[in-house]
Formats: sequence, structure tokens, C-alpha cells
Amino acid sequence: MRLYQLGEFGLIDRLAKLLGKPPKEVRIGIGDDAAAIELGNQKLLLVTTDTLVENIHFKLKEFSFFDLGSKALAANISDVAAMGGIPQYALVTIGAHKNLRVEKVEELYRGIKYLAKKYKIAIIGGDTIQSPKELILSITLLGKVEAKHLLTRAGGRVGDAILVTGSFGGPAAQNYRSKFKIRWEEARIIAQSDLCTSMIDSSDGLARSVMELCRASQVGARIWLQHIPIDPKATLEQALYGGEEYELVFTAPKTKVQNLKSLVEKRTKTKVSVVGEILENKMGIKLFTPQGTVLSLKKGGYEHFK
Amino acid sequence: MRLYQLGEFGLIDRLAKLLGKPPKEVRIGIGDDAAAIELGNQKLLLVTTDTLVENIHFKLKEFSFFDLGSKALAANISDVAAMGGIPQYALVTIGAHKNLRVEKVEELYRGIKYLAKKYKIAIIGGDTIQSPKELILSITLLGKVEAKHLLTRAGGRVGDAILVTGSFGGPAAQNYRSKFKIRWEEARIIAQSDLCTSMIDSSDGLARSVMELCRASQVGARIWLQHIPIDPKATLEQALYGGEEYELVFTAPKTKVQNLKSLVEKRTKTKVSVVGEILENKMGIKLFTPQGTVLSLKKGGYEHFK
Repeated sequence: MRLYQLGEFGLIDRLAKLLGKPPKEVRIGIGDDAAAIELGNQKLLLVTTDTLVENIHFKLKEFSFFDLGSKALAANISDVAAMGGIPQYALVTIGAHKNLRVEKVEELYRGIKYLAKKYKIAIIGGDTIQSPKELILSITLLGKVEAKHLLTRAGGRVGDAILVTGSFGGPAAQNYRSKFKIRWEEARIIAQSDLCTSMIDSSDGLARSVMELCRASQVGARIWLQHIPIDPKATLEQALYGGEEYELVFTAPKTKVQNLKSLVEKRTKTKVSVVGEILENKMGIKLFTPQGTVLSLKKGGYEHFK
Repeated sequence: MRLYQLGEFGLIDRLAKLLGKPPKEVRIGIGDDAAAIELGNQKLLLVTTDTLVENIHFKLKEFSFFDLGSKALAANISDVAAMGGIPQYALVTIGAHKNLRVEKVEELYRGIKYLAKKYKIAIIGGDTIQSPKELILSITLLGKVEAKHLLTRAGGRVGDAILVTGSFGGPAAQNYRSKFKIRWEEARIIAQSDLCTSMIDSSDGLARSVMELCRASQVGARIWLQHIPIDPKATLEQALYGGEEYELVFTAPKTKVQNLKSLVEKRTKTKVSVVGEILENKMGIKLFTPQGTVLSLKKGGYEHFK
């Protein structure tokens, strides 16, 4: 079988099975936004890694090197945020053709530094290697979270409301050239509120995020299409499957929704919307139109190899 | 300026300057085998990352996927070992063409798992991405070391002896297809002995390792060519500049050498040789032939972009 036949998510499942279960101090291993390891003082170490390859994730004529550096770090910050954590240390690996101008590489690192400074992240290492052709940029981010505030994809319970921050489809509508927002402050407020049961970021698209959250929580979901906050420039299709945005998708008991929503909205000015509710696993994931028509969620969102 | 004009080591210097100093809990940042962060309980977290790209670091016809996986993890284990540490958790990123057979990817992960099991390392995450052509394999390894046992490149002092484990040039003589040995056990014994002042692994070649150790320690060195343990199949040139081997290069006060040497040799059966001594910085690095002729160490060892 070839990778394009199996797809990224099928591959991850097979590799996770091959590698086996990690030891018990590893609270979260393969399959969430970041791994979480017990440090023994009620704190968890978070680790996540994300790699961008030219002509797969980006084209150089569409991004400045500065923006590319920021974008790469942003994806990692969002992953740590989605676990409720605080980013701290990054390792940056660049693979570049030997003819690339040193100034371009420095511009890329300035983009990383800009965002690192904003989030108080120290760059503590990495690797600098030659690439035969395409530019490669890989970042590993370490962070921390109090054990009691850790949020994973796996805590959604039947009857919970499904909430989201901000709006969806904006990056897709602008051919992924829009400025990104990371919902780190919102994520920390949500994590510290102890009102939330599960969380994921929407980097692979809203639809994919709901699917992954449901899969990890072993639940189904009902999504009301008219309640999805769609970016004014985007279509519903782009809002559902566009991706490359860092909104938060999270769940909370219905009795806590009003509290959680007003907490986040008052402290950050970011809108929080209820877009659906968690159902039993056997119900699957269903989209409801305003007319009550039921659609099945198509497999979608960004997936490598497919 | 282009990258091939500046070279990897020049680039690292410029990027380290651009990024600035990390906060004080970062005991070791950019520029050593691994970064070291204080965890607050006399323990340090070690983090290192290493990326291999097809047709730069390896050719697929020369390696099995299993061996490639092992090789990638080995480089990281050696980096943690060179700091005196214990490897613990790894994140594995693979970038592959979508036509690659899934079985090949699994074979690669089996190679990683084989070595991970041997060293009790848990694979806790990573990234699976598409690559336009060449295979990319990137591993980040976390480990720990007691603060008092941390060894860096920077502790060499004038008058110290320069010691090495094993022999050099074997991989180069066999076109880099030989089985590798990681000197992890030796490194831990050296670190725990408290007799050693600095250490580095020899992955970029013996000459480069001595140069890097001297640069970090701000000292010079005298190397006696006839005392370098050369692999029976290798030339002196291959022993000095070959690289892709994981011997240890370390320094100790001359009064401690006999103790340290017999400690390592008795407990591991690995030979330890004294190959030189640390001089003042202004003396530079000099190679002495048996006839007493002085040669200057040429810039060498593997360097990206050059």
C-alpha cells in the first residue's frame, strides 16, 4: 500500500500501534496537539513539533521569509495553547539549499524571534542542514501546564455543548495569506476556568477538528450550520474545511456555557459561539441545516499524502 | 552572501547572535550537543534535535529503512550522552513522498523502535508530512542529567589531557555503512566520575570535535598523531576528518587520567586513549608527528552548505 492510499491519519494510527504504549508518566502520547509528561510537581511538560516543507505547505513567492518564520512558530504555539499550556522553549531546524542568501535565513529567524518575544519563548537550539532543493522548516516547542488545567481532545461528554472562538474560513478565502491570530490568551482562560471538558485547535479545519475531538472522546456530535461563525469573506465550505487557522474548538457542560462564554468574551473581546452538542458515539457526526435537513460530515480538512 | 560561502558553523554563530541570550534557567542554549534547562530539583532537562535529508545525509540505496531509523535516533542518543545524560522521550517527524510504500515507513519506525527499546526511550509524538521528493527524517530527543554531572564542551582547562574512546575513521573507511556504536554507558561513567572537565561526541569527525571543544573552552590544543587510535581499515585522514561516528572526546586534569581511563576500561571494555593536551588559546590547535613536525589542523570535518 502507498501513503496516498492510507492517508496521514491512517498512517499515524498504524505507527502508534507499532510503537506501543508509552510509560505511565507520559500522560499524553501520540495523537493529541502536544505530548504531556509528568514532571512530578503537579506540572506537566508539553512538547509538540511541526514541520513545513516548501511546495507542500507553502510557496516562497506567496510568503516573505519573515512571515514564514512566524507562521511555523504560530502552529506550535497554538498546539501548546490547545492543551491549556504556556509555551517556553523552542528548537528551530532549517534545511536550505546552499545557494540561499544568508540574509533570507536571517529574515526567517527574525520572524521566529518576533513571535517568540511576544510569547516569551526562548530559542534554545536546533539544527542547520543542507536541503537538495526545497526549504524545510521544523520547530519543536516545549511548554508547561499545571496538571489540573491540562485539556485534551478526549474529555468531551454526551450532552456537552461544542463551542468555538472567533470565525472560520478567513485564511482559505484569502488563499492563506491573511494574518493569523493565535488564541493563546483565550485558551489559558478556558483551561484555568475548569469549566471545559476538552479542547483542540482548528489548524486542519473546523470539520476535521470536530472529527478528531469526537474520535478521541469516543462520542458523536450535532453541528448547527447556521451557528457556525463564518468569516465575512468565506463560504461555508471554506469555514468547514479550509484550515490553517488557529481558532479553538472546545466542549463544556451546557450548565457552564454561559459562564465560560462571558468569561472569555469579557477578558479577551473574542467572540465565543456555541455551534453544536456532543451526542452518543453511535450517532456519528451530523450537520443540521436551518431547515432541519441532516447532512453527513464529509471526510475533509487538510490531510497529508491524500 | 550565500550559505555555501558562510558555512554551517558561521551561520550558527550569526543566528545565535540574532536570537540573543536565553533566560538564566537555560543552562546551555544554542551551540552544544544538546540544550540544558533547569527543572528546579537539581535535575536538568536535555533537548536535542537532528534531521537527516535524503541525498544529503544518506542515499536510500545504501541504507535499509530499518538502519536509517536506527541511525537517526543514534545521533540524538549520542548528543544526550555527550552531555552526561540519560535519553528518555523522542518525537519523530517523517517527510515522505506520497507514493512511498507504507511498509517502508513501518520498517523505518521499527528501526527507531529497536534502538528506543534498547535505551528505554518512549516515542511520544512527532509529525507525518508529505515531501515533494526526498525523504526527511527529523528526531527530537529529550533526556535528563543531574545538574552536578552535566558535561559541556566548555570546561577544558590549560594542562588537561585530551582523551578519546574507541577508534576513529572506521565509518569513513567503510563508506559509512559500518554498524555504529553509541558510547552511552561510557559517557555516563565519565559524567558520574566527576573527573572529567568537558566532553563532546565525534559525530562531525575527531578534528572538528577537538576544534569545537577548544572553541567553546577558549583554549588551544596539542594532538599527537601517533596516539590517535585509528581503525585498522582507515587512513589518518579518515580518522581525523571522517565523522559519522559516536566516539567521545573529553578532557581531564592529568592527575585524574589514570583513574578515569581504568574506570571506563574496566566497566565497559572500551579502550580509552590520551591523544593530546589542552594549551593556551593563543597556541591554536597543533598536530605533532612522531618526528616532532608541527602541522596545523586544517578546517575540516563535515560541515553543511560547504
